[in-house]
Amino acid sequence: MEYFDTRDYDLAGRIGKLRTKHGIIETPYLFPVIDPIRQQPPLETIRSLGFNGIITNAYLFYRRNKGLPKKIHDSLKWNNTIMTDSGGYQVLIYGDVEVDNKTIVEYEKEIGTDIAVILDIPTGTKMSWEEARQALFETNKRAVEALPYIMDSDQLWVFPVQGSPYKDLLLISTSTAWRLPYHINAFGSPTVLLEKYEYDKILDLVGFARLHLPPHKPLHVFGVGHPMIIPFLVALGGDLFDSASYILYARDNRYMTETGTKKLEELHYLPCNCPVCSKYTVKELLEMPRKKRVEYLALHNLYMLRKEINNVKQAIKEGRLWEYLEYKSKSHPTLRKAFEIVKRYTRYLEKYNPETKGTTHALLLIDKDSHHNPRLIRIKRKVYGMLSNKKPENILLIPAYKKPYNQQIEYIEAKRRYPEYTILFYHPYLGVFPPQLANTYPYFQHEVGIIDEEVITKASTEILQVINKLRPRKIIIIQPVEEKYYLLTHKIIKWLRTKTTYTLDVLSFQT
Amino acid sequence: MEYFDTRDYDLAGRIGKLRTKHGIIETPYLFPVIDPIRQQPPLETIRSLGFNGIITNAYLFYRRNKGLPKKIHDSLKWNNTIMTDSGGYQVLIYGDVEVDNKTIVEYEKEIGTDIAVILDIPTGTKMSWEEARQALFETNKRAVEALPYIMDSDQLWVFPVQGSPYKDLLLISTSTAWRLPYHINAFGSPTVLLEKYEYDKILDLVGFARLHLPPHKPLHVFGVGHPMIIPFLVALGGDLFDSASYILYARDNRYMTETGTKKLEELHYLPCNCPVCSKYTVKELLEMPRKKRVEYLALHNLYMLRKEINNVKQAIKEGRLWEYLEYKSKSHPTLRKAFEIVKRYTRYLEKYNPETKGTTHALLLIDKDSHHNPRLIRIKRKVYGMLSNKKPENILLIPAYKKPYNQQIEYIEAKRRYPEYTILFYHPYLGVFPPQLANTYPYFQHEVGIIDEEVITKASTEILQVINKLRPRKIIIIQPVEEKYYLLTHKIIKWLRTKTTYTLDVLSFQT
Repeated sequence: MEYFDTRDYDLAGRIGKLRTKHGIIETPYLFPVIDPIRQQPPLETIRSLGFNGIITNAYLFYRRNKGLPKKIHDSLKWNNTIMTDSGGYQVLIYGDVEVDNKTIVEYEKEIGTDIAVILDIPTGTKMSWEEARQALFETNKRAVEALPYIMDSDQLWVFPVQGSPYKDLLLISTSTAWRLPYHINAFGSPTVLLEKYEYDKILDLVGFARLHLPPHKPLHVFGVGHPMIIPFLVALGGDLFDSASYILYARDNRYMTETGTKKLEELHYLPCNCPVCSKYTVKELLEMPRKKRVEYLALHNLYMLRKEINNVKQAIKEGRLWEYLEYKSKSHPTLRKAFEIVKRYTRYLEKYNPETKGTTHALLLIDKDSHHNPRLIRIKRKVYGMLSNKKPENILLIPAYKKPYNQQIEYIEAKRRYPEYTILFYHPYLGVFPPQLANTYPYFQHEVGIIDEEVITKASTEILQVINKLRPRKIIIIQPVEEKYYLLTHKIIKWLRTKTTYTLDVLSFQT
Repeated sequence: MEYFDTRDYDLAGRIGKLRTKHGIIETPYLFPVIDPIRQQPPLETIRSLGFNGIITNAYLFYRRNKGLPKKIHDSLKWNNTIMTDSGGYQVLIYGDVEVDNKTIVEYEKEIGTDIAVILDIPTGTKMSWEEARQALFETNKRAVEALPYIMDSDQLWVFPVQGSPYKDLLLISTSTAWRLPYHINAFGSPTVLLEKYEYDKILDLVGFARLHLPPHKPLHVFGVGHPMIIPFLVALGGDLFDSASYILYARDNRYMTETGTKKLEELHYLPCNCPVCSKYTVKELLEMPRKKRVEYLALHNLYMLRKEINNVKQAIKEGRLWEYLEYKSKSHPTLRKAFEIVKRYTRYLEKYNPETKGTTHALLLIDKDSHHNPRLIRIKRKVYGMLSNKKPENILLIPAYKKPYNQQIEYIEAKRRYPEYTILFYHPYLGVFPPQLANTYPYFQHEVGIIDEEVITKASTEILQVINKLRPRKIIIIQPVEEKYYLLTHKIIKWLRTKTTYTLDVLSFQT
């Protein structure tokens, strides 16, 4: 695919380049929604923040120009990428029956937008299954109807995936998406879920859609513009977003933070570094004329969105998107629930994890949630597969407590004294691994947080499973000198003693 | 105490006003360490970021001026607060035996510093218990020796708490602190722990010291200047900090983030909003002349520190410092361990929680860690005390699943049908509570994250304990209609059935 190149991957997230007639958009990207009539803050300011693509409403542009096909880049004085939404929602509200799909599609072609959406059926309100089914089939019909108009276009065209929140309908829509030659698939979140901050439900639907959509095409998620949810959507495969939240929030004195939204009046201190918050205090912002305050708050909100996108991209580059989500999930109950959804998609996400990264940043093993890190799971599965191919008869288990583990005195001693044994390390997060891996990623590059009961329960279960699969005849296990490993070893020994298919010796080395 | 007023409290953290000769410092506060000879970035810039107090080294100032007592505010051209460290460390390094405690104390008086430290024994390197004991007694001797010089001073004087990392010695030092009329107590972190990022050990020592120090006097923690650790230190009662890290890191191309430190070369995107990071890219920063880059990185680091302090203060104002620590603890294994230390001090921290807050922000009940929230514990203890005073004979238990809980159909029905029963709600985080509280804080103002096995285990244990204490004769429990409450109710019923001191009825209401 020439118009969309992806380079860096983590979970189902990726950094990509989307080529448009007016320049390249680096994804993940959020298009600020622009009002073609009364835009605030000015486009020049938005560009100076680093946003090189905007989205506006083709229908409003059409009405404003009474259907005259003015070139949209000239009209808005914006020489970078412009995406236009079709305005299905507005059509519904204003009941303008004369503007149909063909009209809007042709108009979007004529005004020269870079990324265009066909006229879909708005999913803004809660639909019954039957209504959603009808919206889906009508949208599919329109998508086919638009094909003759758009086949010769040099624009990128967007197919709106329909059927949400009904997964059976989503499945029909996603299979249509495979057959139609649109460039971008778009998911419209039911706004009712967004308003209620039911991020877990949105994520479940987006994850489901992504799973069934062509992975090489970008996925746009409509109308999601809060720093809280963006990293989770990216992790499940969202590439493009758009939102008017920066200005809508600002008009209502709402101030985005990393972990939520505050009313400006609630704040005593500005928990932000952006040029606005570095220059003004809460009091000064509250006392300035409304128009100015709205502009500054909108700017702050855009800075927050920009930072969140940067954070996510940096996390993808480092291969630490999972760790980033673990962190974010603890900022609010709704994100903690959202994280459980991401966990549920772990197996699917894992597939997208590349085998190696240029940079191998230490794996952060924080607490029991870290056991679910897809990167760790994938590596362990490989190692366990390798081990069970070998099926060593005699194994000697050593607690891995001090890096590099193959420098531990227990290992050096054991190798000398028990040459007929295959030595394996065990670890509360890394499970079982051979000494040969002790200097490779992540067996050397990791940092360990807490080793509490839950971590030990999970780890010991896994370690026992691996050992059982090896069906050894003799086992020697070394007692740890490190206090924090007592419980884990104790649990393993207790369980090993319940079986009689092997001999078991427990040793302590003096160090 | 006139020189230090505290107004807002959360955990053992507080927002206070420290009055100095050159203005008021709002605590928690971090004093940037200033080099009197080659300061970068310029003091004017540091002030423009909102820092109104700096710290510098009295000994270096003494050497530079060959012992001449120049007025330090004039010399540095800084009209706000100046704190001077005594330079004990430098004395050790340069072996300058002629500068003794009396000399430095008199000099600090003469140059007119606002906050002054006596010449303590550096704890920079790892000391044996005997060495630490000697340092402690020598420092105590000097603190007494300095008294005649400082009693008539209008400056604030700092008593360095010694003995770390030995708690028995710390205890001796903290009891001296109660007897001596110093204004501020200061804790010197063993740098060896800081270098190894062993934040849990530092926190344990600071928590221990704070517990035994006069609570009405501010506590300064020397040499800790990373956004990661500051919120945890504030939660355990740290008021003042100082650090040169912003510039030391910058000289080494190290870039502070909310969750750690990066080498600038490692970054692909700048995960920050500050005026520096909003203006430049990684590439531009790397390509500019070194001196300029160091200045910009130092500025960025100062912006990060400023933001962290603001975040902490806003969290204290909202009464959400615990939630903030829960969040931060998931950013790195070392902070996850640090959080366990804070948990250990919960009972002590709880004391500092004021009964009511002007603003009652929703309690964020995220996962099992939230059960340890001192605010929640304190409120529940009060409610349970109240309940066990009443000892109702017949109790009727209703799952609280939809706010406001006293509008649930089960409650309305039960009240009508069973007037002879005392109705109590049960909840996976809020435990047991009477309907009368359903509209009060936090029984109305809270948000619930996940309800997993661990949350249920913890909650059911607590709920059973409360019920057992009431010694009822009859119990009715209502089955929930909400799926997510099945497991909790099931567990409670199972346990209730093991006892025979009461009759038990299980009911389901159709809604």
